[in-house]
Amino acid sequence: MDGKTDLQHMGRRARAASRALAKTSASVKNGALQGVANSLVERMDEILAANSQDIDAGRRDGLSDQLLGRLALDGNKLEGMAGDVRKVAELADPTEESFDETTLANGLEVAKRRVPLGVIGVIYESRPNVTIDISSLCLKSGNAVILRGGKEAIRSNGVLAQITRDAIAEAGIADDAVQFVESTDRALVGEMLGMTEFIDLIVPRGSAELVRRVGREAQMPAITGGIGVCHTFVDKTADVDMAVDIAFNAKTSSPYVCNALDTLIVHSGIASEFLPKVAGRLGDSGVELRCDRRARSIIGNSNGVTVASATDDDWGTEFLALTAAIKVVDSLDEALDHIELYGSGHTDVIVTEDDSSSQRFLNEVDSGVVLVNASSRFNDGGQLGLGAEVAISTNKMHARGPIGLKELTSYKWTVVGSGQVRN
Amino acid sequence: MDGKTDLQHMGRRARAASRALAKTSASVKNGALQGVANSLVERMDEILAANSQDIDAGRRDGLSDQLLGRLALDGNKLEGMAGDVRKVAELADPTEESFDETTLANGLEVAKRRVPLGVIGVIYESRPNVTIDISSLCLKSGNAVILRGGKEAIRSNGVLAQITRDAIAEAGIADDAVQFVESTDRALVGEMLGMTEFIDLIVPRGSAELVRRVGREAQMPAITGGIGVCHTFVDKTADVDMAVDIAFNAKTSSPYVCNALDTLIVHSGIASEFLPKVAGRLGDSGVELRCDRRARSIIGNSNGVTVASATDDDWGTEFLALTAAIKVVDSLDEALDHIELYGSGHTDVIVTEDDSSSQRFLNEVDSGVVLVNASSRFNDGGQLGLGAEVAISTNKMHARGPIGLKELTSYKWTVVGSGQVRN
Repeated sequence: MDGKTDLQHMGRRARAASRALAKTSASVKNGALQGVANSLVERMDEILAANSQDIDAGRRDGLSDQLLGRLALDGNKLEGMAGDVRKVAELADPTEESFDETTLANGLEVAKRRVPLGVIGVIYESRPNVTIDISSLCLKSGNAVILRGGKEAIRSNGVLAQITRDAIAEAGIADDAVQFVESTDRALVGEMLGMTEFIDLIVPRGSAELVRRVGREAQMPAITGGIGVCHTFVDKTADVDMAVDIAFNAKTSSPYVCNALDTLIVHSGIASEFLPKVAGRLGDSGVELRCDRRARSIIGNSNGVTVASATDDDWGTEFLALTAAIKVVDSLDEALDHIELYGSGHTDVIVTEDDSSSQRFLNEVDSGVVLVNASSRFNDGGQLGLGAEVAISTNKMHARGPIGLKELTSYKWTVVGSGQVRN
Repeated sequence: MDGKTDLQHMGRRARAASRALAKTSASVKNGALQGVANSLVERMDEILAANSQDIDAGRRDGLSDQLLGRLALDGNKLEGMAGDVRKVAELADPTEESFDETTLANGLEVAKRRVPLGVIGVIYESRPNVTIDISSLCLKSGNAVILRGGKEAIRSNGVLAQITRDAIAEAGIADDAVQFVESTDRALVGEMLGMTEFIDLIVPRGSAELVRRVGREAQMPAITGGIGVCHTFVDKTADVDMAVDIAFNAKTSSPYVCNALDTLIVHSGIASEFLPKVAGRLGDSGVELRCDRRARSIIGNSNGVTVASATDDDWGTEFLALTAAIKVVDSLDEALDHIELYGSGHTDVIVTEDDSSSQRFLNEVDSGVVLVNASSRFNDGGQLGLGAEVAISTNKMHARGPIGLKELTSYKWTVVGSGQVRN
C-alpha cells in the first residue's frame, strides 16, 4: 500500500471514529484517559527502549544537545506525562456544556451546545510528549486525531500512540480515534494539508517554517500561531524593580519558547534608571543585548555589561535564544506604533503605574494576549486556567491565544418549541 | 488605473480605516448609523433613479420577474431598510463586552474582550438591501467592509454605498470603512479571494455556485454556508396537526430561502394519518411532491393531489422552489442516517411528543441549528435574537448558524497583574 492510499484510509477511519466518539459519554472518555495514564507507567520499559533508539539515531545524525534533551524520556518525565493526562481527565467535558440559553417571546427555548470539531490533524516536531498531550486533549473534547510527528522521535511517538490506542480500545473507544502516521515521507505533509474531506482542523506545532507552510498550503482551517515576537514596554511611571523582575522572567525563565521576551521597549523618562539595572540582571544570565543608539549609550555607561548595536532585522525577530533587543522611545504612542509595526499579535506587556496608559495599551494593542504588570510567559493554556493547550493561536478567527478543550469544539444551536411557525 | 491596482488600493485604505474604526466609540458608530438611516429617506429620489436604471437594464437583459422583484426598490422598502439600520444602531455594541472574567490564584485578573475582525469582504448577488444590511452590521461591530455586488444591481448598490460613505464621514468615521467595487469584471472576484493582507474574512451571499467557488478559492477564512438541505422528520408520536402546520410553514412561508423545507421524512407508524393531511395542505399551495414508493402509495389514495416519484437526485437537493421530497422510514435511526447522508448541516427539525426521540435528535444531528417542534424557518439571525445577520454558516470553525454582530468579532485576552512572574 503506498503512502497516499494509506493516509486516505486513515482519514476515512478517523472520520468514522470521530462520529462514534462524539456520542461517547464523559465517563467513558475519562476512563480511557485514566487507562492511557496507567499504561504510560506500566509500559515504561517499552517506551524507553524505543526512545533510546531515537536518541542513538539522533546522536548518529548529529542532533544538538538541546534537541537531544527535548527528545529524551525517562521515568520521571513519563510519570509527569501520566499526571498531565490525569489532569485532563479531571477537567470539565466541554461537550456537556450549553450556553447562551434564552427563551424567546414566542416561547422557543434557544441554546447553544458545544460539539466536537470532528477530526484534528496535528503536524509536530521533536518532543514526544506532544503525542500524549494532544491525543488526550482531542479525546477529551470528542475529536479524533491524526498525528504526524517528526523523524527524530518517530519510534518514541509510534509506541506512545500505540499505547494510547490500546488503552482507549480497552475502554470501549475505537482505537482509530488516535492514529499516527508511521512514515516520515515529507510528501505526506502536503497530502494531509489537502485532505479537506477527512480533516476539519490542522494544527502545526513546531518551527516558524512549518507554521508558515501550513498557513500557506492547508486547504482546511488551520491554527497558525506560535510565532511570538513579544514586546515588553516599560512606561515612564513603571515600578522599576517590578519592571526588572518582569523583563528578567520573560526573557530568561524559558528563552526557547514563543512567549519569551524578544524586544524590550523603554520610555526615555525611566531609561536611565531602569536600563542599567535590567542590563545587569540580564547580562549576568548571559543574555545578549542588542540595543538602539540611546539604550546603548545608557547601558554602555554601566559597568561590566557588553552590548551590541541592534540592526533593523532585530526588530520583529523571534529570537528563541538568550538574546533581547532594546529600544528607547519618548511616548506610549511610539511604543504602540512599534508594536503594531513589528509585533506578531502573540503576547505584549506594559509595565506601568498609570491607569490611563494601561487602558490604552489593553485597548490598542491588537494581540492575542495583552498583559499589564505581568510576565509575557503567562500566555499559556495551563497558566491561564485552561488546564492544557494544543497550541497558541494568533489567528483572529475561531479562537485566539491558548487553544484548550473549549477551543477544540464548535457548537450547534438547539431550539425547542411547541409547534411554533414563522409569520 | 487598472482593476488590479484599484482593489489593492481599496484594501490598503480599508485596513487603515479598520484600525481607526476599532478605536471608535459606540456612540459615534451609532450616530453614523442613524445618519445612514436618515440619508436613505432623504436621498430616496437619487436611490430610486439609480434603481430604475438597474430595472430597465434588467428588463433588457431578460431577467425573470422574480429577480426583477428582488431588485426593485420603492419608498416603503427604503423606509424598511432605514428602520433596519436604526435597529442595528440600538443593538448592544459587541466590542464593549468582556467575558470569561476570572481572578487566578496568583492574583492575575484574566478576561477576554471582544475586538473587531478587521476588514470583511462581501461578495453578493442581486438584492440591493444587502449593501445596507451588511455595511451597518460591519460598522456596528467595528469592521471595515469591501462590498462586491452583482451586475444587476450595480447602480443601486453604488448609490447606496455612496450614501453610506457620505453619512459616516459626516459622523467622523473614515468613509473608506465602507467601499464598493464599482466594476463587475469577474476577475476581480478571484483577486479579492487572494487578498489575505487586506481582507480578514470573506462572506459570499448568493448562489450555491458562488458559495462553493469562495470555499474553494478563498485564501483567507470564509463563511461558507447558506446551502440548506433542510429535513423535517415527523416521528411516530408527533402531534399530527402540529406536524402539518410546521411542515406547511417550513415549505411555503418563503420557498426560495435556505431554511425552507426540502425533504419531509415520515415515520411509517404515523404516515397513513399524517401524509394525506400534509399533502392536501401542500398540494393546495401548489407544492410539487416527490415521493418515495411508500409515501406515494399512501398519498396517491387521497383525493385530488398529484405526486411524482422521487429520484435519487431529489434526496440532498436544496429545491429553492415549491417542491418537497417525501420519504417514509421505519425508525428514528433510519431518519438520522438519511439526514447524515444527505443533509448539508444547515437546519433540521424533528416533530415528536417523545422526549427520548427529541433528545437523540438534538444530540445526534450534526447541523448548525437543530429544532424540536418548530419550523426550520426559525434559523435566522433576526428570529433567534441576534437582531440581524450577515449570513448563515454551516462551517464548524469560528461561528455556526446565523452570523450576527458577535460573530463578526474576535477577542483578545487581557491579563492585569501586580508584578507576577512565572515560576
